Amino acid sequence: MQPKMKTGSDALVQNTLELDALLAGSRALVEVELNSLLPPSGAAPEKVHQAIRWSVFAGGKRFRPALLLAIGQAFGAQINQLIRTACAFEMIHTYSLIHDDLPAMDDDELRRGRPTCHVRFDEATAILAGDALQTLAFQSIANDDRLDAETRITLISELARASATPDGMVAGQALDMEAEARQTNGAQLQEIHRLKTGALIVGAARCGAIIGAADKYELEAVTAYGSHLGLLFQITDDLLDITASAEELGKTPGKDVQSSKATYPALYGIDESREKAVKAHRAACAALEQLHRRTEVLHRIVDFILHRTG
Amino acid sequence: MQPKMKTGSDALVQNTLELDALLAGSRALVEVELNSLLPPSGAAPEKVHQAIRWSVFAGGKRFRPALLLAIGQAFGAQINQLIRTACAFEMIHTYSLIHDDLPAMDDDELRRGRPTCHVRFDEATAILAGDALQTLAFQSIANDDRLDAETRITLISELARASATPDGMVAGQALDMEAEARQTNGAQLQEIHRLKTGALIVGAARCGAIIGAADKYELEAVTAYGSHLGLLFQITDDLLDITASAEELGKTPGKDVQSSKATYPALYGIDESREKAVKAHRAACAALEQLHRRTEVLHRIVDFILHRTG
Repeated sequence: MQPKMKTGSDALVQNTLELDALLAGSRALVEVELNSLLPPSGAAPEKVHQAIRWSVFAGGKRFRPALLLAIGQAFGAQINQLIRTACAFEMIHTYSLIHDDLPAMDDDELRRGRPTCHVRFDEATAILAGDALQTLAFQSIANDDRLDAETRITLISELARASATPDGMVAGQALDMEAEARQTNGAQLQEIHRLKTGALIVGAARCGAIIGAADKYELEAVTAYGSHLGLLFQITDDLLDITASAEELGKTPGKDVQSSKATYPALYGIDESREKAVKAHRAACAALEQLHRRTEVLHRIVDFILHRTG
Repeated sequence: MQPKMKTGSDALVQNTLELDALLAGSRALVEVELNSLLPPSGAAPEKVHQAIRWSVFAGGKRFRPALLLAIGQAFGAQINQLIRTACAFEMIHTYSLIHDDLPAMDDDELRRGRPTCHVRFDEATAILAGDALQTLAFQSIANDDRLDAETRITLISELARASATPDGMVAGQALDMEAEARQTNGAQLQEIHRLKTGALIVGAARCGAIIGAADKYELEAVTAYGSHLGLLFQITDDLLDITASAEELGKTPGKDVQSSKATYPALYGIDESREKAVKAHRAACAALEQLHRRTEVLHRIVDFILHRTG
């Protein structure tokens, strides 16, 4: 039976509710698995293990794992084949937040409504917690015996490329810091976002498809979907920094303007940034049309990011 | 033809010279490979890439790679099968030095006779350079198509365990920091050293043997050799911090005493520490007797560490 077509804001509310349930479901699965993968907080060195858990279990949305799970399932992979790699992406994301929040970097004291890792513990512990989380991400995939060795190697290689430099997250973070000191144009801003936020989102999407044994053309379409979704994610993130309250955001709003970060609203204004978000949404949906798979959930994910409020 | 037996200090000088040549040879190989594995300093983000190269090409002894190469060759592996994993260990070692030197950690301004990464560049760049180097280590093994996928997975798993927590380097660094604040006993000191320095040395030894297809019993002997060698390495390191000059050491001597670090000389005095070093040397040699391989070079490596002056 075909699902009944819905239009306008009713459809949006309905889809958002369904997606909320789906995200909550994958969040629960991811948190159980993360709990089993991370060292216990009672084991030595306790402070570092507590710091890791403080940052990992801070109420994050688990967006990257949810995306990986959704794409993997669209390609027919089982949850138990996907879950470890999904957690690995969350570990890399969390390590990057811990290090980005350090005084020498973005100097943030609040994250998801709670003190950041170096504020709750201390700087040295936060550096080590981030370092350990990064290693644990690669280790989790390496030790995942539900996948064959060839697949694990491919996933580790994808995660590494998305995380480091010159094609990944660390490169984006570095370019972003350099940009604070000077005028940034549109092309530079897009490159910063492609690396800083996009690379890990694209990587999560690709890894889901790889575990689901996507063919070359399908992987290209998933990569395009992830790229547009990543751009959309960053534009809405920039917009939220201006329009949302601290309560909705769980971190200090207006932080970007204050530190003269390169952002979409700063460069294009709010209205043109919203137009760019709609355009990225459309491009992501178009990429999904290339896949002859059940992509309803993947459509809802882009809808959700376009309309998100936190 | 059997090599002529040598005894006493003449033999030591001869062996040291031969080992120097061997270390110089493997250092040259490792540096060529590292150069090809690291992102070029002219590519964006330039500052992070320059910082990575500043710290990697700082005249290090390349001890861990040399050990991995020597053990791998004792098991009949080819240099080209070993070299990438050898470089991965050096990258992990270098990232740990960059982060350990940060103001929030050991706050060191001098390393191998040159300004440390955060002094030469800045703290944020040093954090990112360390983060990127860690990822590049895992990526280098994952992309090493001279080894089959099963072997690469085993190597990545070994490197990860040796690097993180609760069984690796990060755990040791965390315990070491905790120890600065309180009295440390002999068992705690040995545990700190086993993790902080030993884990990566044992890991390098094991990975050489794994690439050389060592069997289970051989791998156990190599693990024992690496453990005793790692302990010896740390005791002589502690002793050098007291007895060597800044010129020989390339870093600020006396730093351990100043920060009331837990060290062998602090706990046992210089003479008893030297006895412990001799005992670790003997135990490492005994482990080699379990291997029915050509272990001359591996014997010279322990001799070299026992008598090192920098």
